[in-house]
Amino acid sequence: MEGLSSRIAEINNSAAQTHTRQFEILAETLEKDGHNIEQLLDKISSFQVAIPSWALGTGGTRFGRFPGGGEPGSLEEKIQDVGTLHALNASSDAISLHIPWDIPKDTNAIKELAASYNLKFDAVNSNTFQDQPGQDHSYKFGSLCHSDPAVRMKAVEHNIEVIKYGKELGSKALTVWLADGSSFPGQMNFRKAFGNTLDSLERIYETLPEDWKVLVEYKPFEPYFYSMVIPDWGTSHLLANKLGEKAFCLVDLGHHLPNTNIEQIVATLMMEAKLGGFHFNDSKFADDDLTVGSMKPYQLFLIFNELVEGMEDEKSANPVPAWMIDASHNLKDPLEDLLQSVEAMKLAYAQALIIDRDSLEKYRESNDVSMAQEVLQNAYRTDVRPLLAEARRRSNAAINPLDTYRKLQIREQLIQTRGSKTIATGL
Amino acid sequence: MEGLSSRIAEINNSAAQTHTRQFEILAETLEKDGHNIEQLLDKISSFQVAIPSWALGTGGTRFGRFPGGGEPGSLEEKIQDVGTLHALNASSDAISLHIPWDIPKDTNAIKELAASYNLKFDAVNSNTFQDQPGQDHSYKFGSLCHSDPAVRMKAVEHNIEVIKYGKELGSKALTVWLADGSSFPGQMNFRKAFGNTLDSLERIYETLPEDWKVLVEYKPFEPYFYSMVIPDWGTSHLLANKLGEKAFCLVDLGHHLPNTNIEQIVATLMMEAKLGGFHFNDSKFADDDLTVGSMKPYQLFLIFNELVEGMEDEKSANPVPAWMIDASHNLKDPLEDLLQSVEAMKLAYAQALIIDRDSLEKYRESNDVSMAQEVLQNAYRTDVRPLLAEARRRSNAAINPLDTYRKLQIREQLIQTRGSKTIATGL
Amino acid sequence: MEGLSSRIAEINNSAAQTHTRQFEILAETLEKDGHNIEQLLDKISSFQVAIPSWALGTGGTRFGRFPGGGEPGSLEEKIQDVGTLHALNASSDAISLHIPWDIPKDTNAIKELAASYNLKFDAVNSNTFQDQPGQDHSYKFGSLCHSDPAVRMKAVEHNIEVIKYGKELGSKALTVWLADGSSFPGQMNFRKAFGNTLDSLERIYETLPEDWKVLVEYKPFEPYFYSMVIPDWGTSHLLANKLGEKAFCLVDLGHHLPNTNIEQIVATLMMEAKLGGFHFNDSKFADDDLTVGSMKPYQLFLIFNELVEGMEDEKSANPVPAWMIDASHNLKDPLEDLLQSVEAMKLAYAQALIIDRDSLEKYRESNDVSMAQEVLQNAYRTDVRPLLAEARRRSNAAINPLDTYRKLQIREQLIQTRGSKTIATGL
Amino acid sequence: MEGLSSRIAEINNSAAQTHTRQFEILAETLEKDGHNIEQLLDKISSFQVAIPSWALGTGGTRFGRFPGGGEPGSLEEKIQDVGTLHALNASSDAISLHIPWDIPKDTNAIKELAASYNLKFDAVNSNTFQDQPGQDHSYKFGSLCHSDPAVRMKAVEHNIEVIKYGKELGSKALTVWLADGSSFPGQMNFRKAFGNTLDSLERIYETLPEDWKVLVEYKPFEPYFYSMVIPDWGTSHLLANKLGEKAFCLVDLGHHLPNTNIEQIVATLMMEAKLGGFHFNDSKFADDDLTVGSMKPYQLFLIFNELVEGMEDEKSANPVPAWMIDASHNLKDPLEDLLQSVEAMKLAYAQALIIDRDSLEKYRESNDVSMAQEVLQNAYRTDVRPLLAEARRRSNAAINPLDTYRKLQIREQLIQTRGSKTIATGL
Repeated sequence: MEGLSSRIAEINNSAAQTHTRQFEILAETLEKDGHNIEQLLDKISSFQVAIPSWALGTGGTRFGRFPGGGEPGSLEEKIQDVGTLHALNASSDAISLHIPWDIPKDTNAIKELAASYNLKFDAVNSNTFQDQPGQDHSYKFGSLCHSDPAVRMKAVEHNIEVIKYGKELGSKALTVWLADGSSFPGQMNFRKAFGNTLDSLERIYETLPEDWKVLVEYKPFEPYFYSMVIPDWGTSHLLANKLGEKAFCLVDLGHHLPNTNIEQIVATLMMEAKLGGFHFNDSKFADDDLTVGSMKPYQLFLIFNELVEGMEDEKSANPVPAWMIDASHNLKDPLEDLLQSVEAMKLAYAQALIIDRDSLEKYRESNDVSMAQEVLQNAYRTDVRPLLAEARRRSNAAINPLDTYRKLQIREQLIQTRGSKTIATGL
Repeated sequence: MEGLSSRIAEINNSAAQTHTRQFEILAETLEKDGHNIEQLLDKISSFQVAIPSWALGTGGTRFGRFPGGGEPGSLEEKIQDVGTLHALNASSDAISLHIPWDIPKDTNAIKELAASYNLKFDAVNSNTFQDQPGQDHSYKFGSLCHSDPAVRMKAVEHNIEVIKYGKELGSKALTVWLADGSSFPGQMNFRKAFGNTLDSLERIYETLPEDWKVLVEYKPFEPYFYSMVIPDWGTSHLLANKLGEKAFCLVDLGHHLPNTNIEQIVATLMMEAKLGGFHFNDSKFADDDLTVGSMKPYQLFLIFNELVEGMEDEKSANPVPAWMIDASHNLKDPLEDLLQSVEAMKLAYAQALIIDRDSLEKYRESNDVSMAQEVLQNAYRTDVRPLLAEARRRSNAAINPLDTYRKLQIREQLIQTRGSKTIATGL
Repeated sequence: MEGLSSRIAEINNSAAQTHTRQFEILAETLEKDGHNIEQLLDKISSFQVAIPSWALGTGGTRFGRFPGGGEPGSLEEKIQDVGTLHALNASSDAISLHIPWDIPKDTNAIKELAASYNLKFDAVNSNTFQDQPGQDHSYKFGSLCHSDPAVRMKAVEHNIEVIKYGKELGSKALTVWLADGSSFPGQMNFRKAFGNTLDSLERIYETLPEDWKVLVEYKPFEPYFYSMVIPDWGTSHLLANKLGEKAFCLVDLGHHLPNTNIEQIVATLMMEAKLGGFHFNDSKFADDDLTVGSMKPYQLFLIFNELVEGMEDEKSANPVPAWMIDASHNLKDPLEDLLQSVEAMKLAYAQALIIDRDSLEKYRESNDVSMAQEVLQNAYRTDVRPLLAEARRRSNAAINPLDTYRKLQIREQLIQTRGSKTIATGL
Repeated sequence: MEGLSSRIAEINNSAAQTHTRQFEILAETLEKDGHNIEQLLDKISSFQVAIPSWALGTGGTRFGRFPGGGEPGSLEEKIQDVGTLHALNASSDAISLHIPWDIPKDTNAIKELAASYNLKFDAVNSNTFQDQPGQDHSYKFGSLCHSDPAVRMKAVEHNIEVIKYGKELGSKALTVWLADGSSFPGQMNFRKAFGNTLDSLERIYETLPEDWKVLVEYKPFEPYFYSMVIPDWGTSHLLANKLGEKAFCLVDLGHHLPNTNIEQIVATLMMEAKLGGFHFNDSKFADDDLTVGSMKPYQLFLIFNELVEGMEDEKSANPVPAWMIDASHNLKDPLEDLLQSVEAMKLAYAQALIIDRDSLEKYRESNDVSMAQEVLQNAYRTDVRPLLAEARRRSNAAINPLDTYRKLQIREQLIQTRGSKTIATGL
């Protein structure tokens, strides 16, 4: 790590002059518009995104997988990779584990390793959408919703076990992505499936530590192709409300029907103080799990507009949501994809921070539609990259993370160390 | 009317022999499968669909309108048209009025007229999506959600006035389709718009008679193209819950994003005892407002499957929903379109009634997906048209309504009486 | 096989009486409407659907796979399974092989085996969307479209090899599903990718035997999530036109954007004499690969309406398209799924055959929209199942194929013979 | 006009200092990256977008219309409004007329008036989707595709008349948006409708002057809701090919099914030298006709990426497409909406011009997906607004057009002159 830091510093040196000039010009413009640069930099620096352990290896589709090289073969190597990211961008200070893909054998050693990279453990994730080898009850026809109480019990116990691992690691949240559903009309009794699911979640909820949250994710289809037990925010919200104060909704950008206005869902859930977490990615067609910001960067900005508005609202009772990337890197080097994703998120965040909110509200009140749009676009069209670079520079991270990653030949070194044929656990 | 009845009887006579043979064969088959034919006929006869007053004239698109002839020019003529439908199919015993398009001048006379056709008044509908000539506050930027309290107050008062008309006519429900929304990112503060809407609805709710319901409709887009204040069932449900026991959700089939599983929404809302009403139509692309059953008859059957299951569940606290057709007849004779729509609904209803529910539940419990599908398809593939015809015959309505309508040359007579250039109020 | 036939006959006996009565009633009605029953039965009997070799095992999603038991572990066992289907429904007289999943080792032995089940070999399918173990050039970034000529050459040669196997087996067509595409804006030069693809296809086309066809499939997304080289029928048609007279388009029902009017595409391609083949399945959201007819049976009927109209048009130069099922059986027994799929296709076909085409055209000419719809719905609402059963009975196949399959406990026997843990090659 | 120019100059003066500093900094950065600023400014200045005559008034939906004030009540006033736009942004040097909404009475006077504002006449547009008062043959069931030859002939003659007006005004293209289609399965014989349409278009094509183009537009739905005769680019391309060398396709951004990759269609059509024109707008759900760039600015940039690539390709035989805005201004002042639309188009164009195309191709060839994305995003994230402002400044147009429009109180003056109740012809 120290080695990495010093090599980053070296590359920063050669980029410093150009960066400084660009930053100063931007800072001058923003200050003229009434922004406090130091506050902006503070907020940007504080913004941290959790990296899921399964996003460090090459993903695939049902048609095949084309692995890259140097993929992490163990939890330790996954933590190392997140450490590399964090050294480069100073924005990825947590890892989110997926059980059973990442069961820690020696919890203390794992925690120490993470701490050595300045990493924490974010929400833990359960998996009841795959059967493990030799599993006695199958999840083929569902887990928490299953018609057979024995299968439900198995799935409940798995979630309780995941909480146990999370407690040992210092996590404070359990994310439940319930992949349960049906693929054919007639297959499932919708109301019984909901009732079974609620009952299962209540059993899990009972064991949740006082300072934990449970995050209930929704998705309209895949892996089932007719109905999902929790298909939309309305159902997720219904469940979270029935469960209690520690239960929240989790929004994954890719889990919506075509044309959904996601930013409005964000606003509604924050208004109801029930937005607990966010999975970032991007998509064009379905749950494509692409690099954040690679397809619809303006939508991302509009979502951050709502997030910032909700978080800065003093009357809001919504907790700060847990941010996480949830993507599948089928074609790119996973670490490059993650660097691009975090950069896109922070651009959207920084642009949302410089929205002239007083003017925006004034134009909204007077229904001056053209000018309300101008206010948003004025922020969006501003090139805030120097602001992000400056925040990184001050945190001893890379001015240009992806460029630095390439120059340091990190992937080449990982291939040398780990080999070109390793396959990470996960999707 | 009596004239109409006797002419229907005459035409029935010539169709009776063929019908009776077909009915007897179907009855025999269904009885062999354990169904009680008389009970089925009772249920089918009892099924009544309200006709909205605006569906009796030719509709249009934003690109133009091509009126037909003989359209009703007054409320009295609209009631006459619904009376004709009811005489033909014995399934349209109510009319749903839209204020201000159909303000009754002499309530008692109107009630008597309706009674002479055996018609009742179903839910009344408010309209805050158009400005009336000379209107002082415009709904251009919303009504119940508007940033200006004066506009909100005007919209609230309009709804209260609609309730007043409804009370006089014997209605028991107010339907609120809130067309409010925004067309551009930035235009609307989502949370304020929701708050204003809730506040407005509460003021309306306060004036609602004890035995009334208010039905809150949702729609994802149109006439606004970025956000709607009530875009989905989740938001409608949120509002209905905050309002109280007399508030329910209303589902319009055309008001969903592509690929939405509507039947699951129906199941969820009935489970929560919040499904208050239904607007039937059909669509391929958006809110196309086509003849019921003309595009996705299997989806219609699956929806009726949930409706029947919910209504026959003794533990369910959901009231019987209000059924209504909400379509726009741009190309067809409106009365023919309505005859086809009611027929399609009753086919789906009858098919849902003959589903072997015990087997279905058994297969669901054992996750026998193939057989669960077979049970549904077995009902759906059954040709139940003779059952509907028999129910009509016993009610002195037409064995073949559309055929009878044509033979009786009803449209030709209406054109003679009303002229070929009349244009009905409405869309 | 003989054993199977006699057992089918036995079960038929017990169902014969009920069936005969239902068939006679239907025949009587249809004859009254002017249909020639024997001709209908002939057409229905002649209708044959090819079964793809990969559809005989349990499919999966990118999230997991839940195998069933008794899956075929060899090409021989796959042929046996198709033989079983054909014995049951007399409508699956061909198998479509996928190379390299099903490379025949001894072609003559395989042909003899197939012949013993009365099976032929339909179109052969190439696979350039997966890397085989030890493959020297990767298809990760495309195959026929690849920027590297060496990869293109490898993919071309693979297709030529597939033709070679097909020639040995008696196939007459090569199906090219080109999974090539890109997942990120910027990744691919659209015009170069098209040019490379055309060049590669021309090289394959050159080697195509005189009496063969090449079928060019299209798909809008998956496994790539931004662009596909052949995303729609327009591009497929462009390629087929440039290639020549032996090149045709192939339509897969699941390969369309939401709300596409597929039946119109069918009509257009037949008008242009370029519809070469059809992959049947059903879907609600994307390429869901569900049982044919399980989701949108009316759309299926409308497609068959166009197919029948095109095939019965004497002026049409379009060849009879190759019919194939292309589904993924994640939850059901694959053989049951295929029986249901073939049944749904034949229902739609039979209903399309009994459309009163003269009336339909008459109403279309006079723009009598209501009656044109009535004509279609009259055919669709007719319960033609007895017609299909009679066609099967006369071919010594099962009156009720799925019921017979269950009664004969075929899956149980396959599990006993093949084991419960076998996994078929394929997706 | 002179008055307007001098007032613009005045306002420019007060903005000049800030602008100049921002422009110089941007120019410096771009030059460092190897761009020729003068060439960029030239290209940006040359970029001109036609304004359709119907876009100068407030539009509506089928649910209502909320007119603003000061709308143009005559063709002369429409030309004046486009003149105002062009004075402000120096990018709207042409008007596109819609017949019969804008029939010029005195062609010479109209041409002189236009010339006084430095305006030309772009493509003329026919209208066969509405009946005019007293029309003898109705377009209710189609026009060029109609089953009745008399209706087809009427529509053909209308198009020929539109060409006549266009010739007088100096137009060089006819745009045919064929709104023909059907709303119900069964209504239309797809193949006959196509054949009739082709025949009608051939008759129009025969009368087309040698130096003219005919642009064939496509649209998947609305105003018909089941099928459109020309639903997609494939059908438009088929027709253009059959018609001949003067026939081209026209792409309207809003005329696509959800998730369509429009930029790929652009690339394909330019490759085939058949992209004749472009209608710009933006949308979230359907043909929403919103301000260009208000919803999906990155998609707009990707489209301009293809347009620039196609136009700068020396081997391309595609003509420079006709650019036009085609939007509906329901909520905004139409002139403000158009200023915002042109600005968004030019931003996308300028960003497409500064893409490092050599690097992009290099990364594509080597399948370096991350870096290919970086190249695109690097251009897109650059704030090129000062470049546009400088191009305008040099053309004596406004540095900040919308701001200037507001400061000059142009709408207020139009209301004073024209009144607050005028309604423009059009949608």
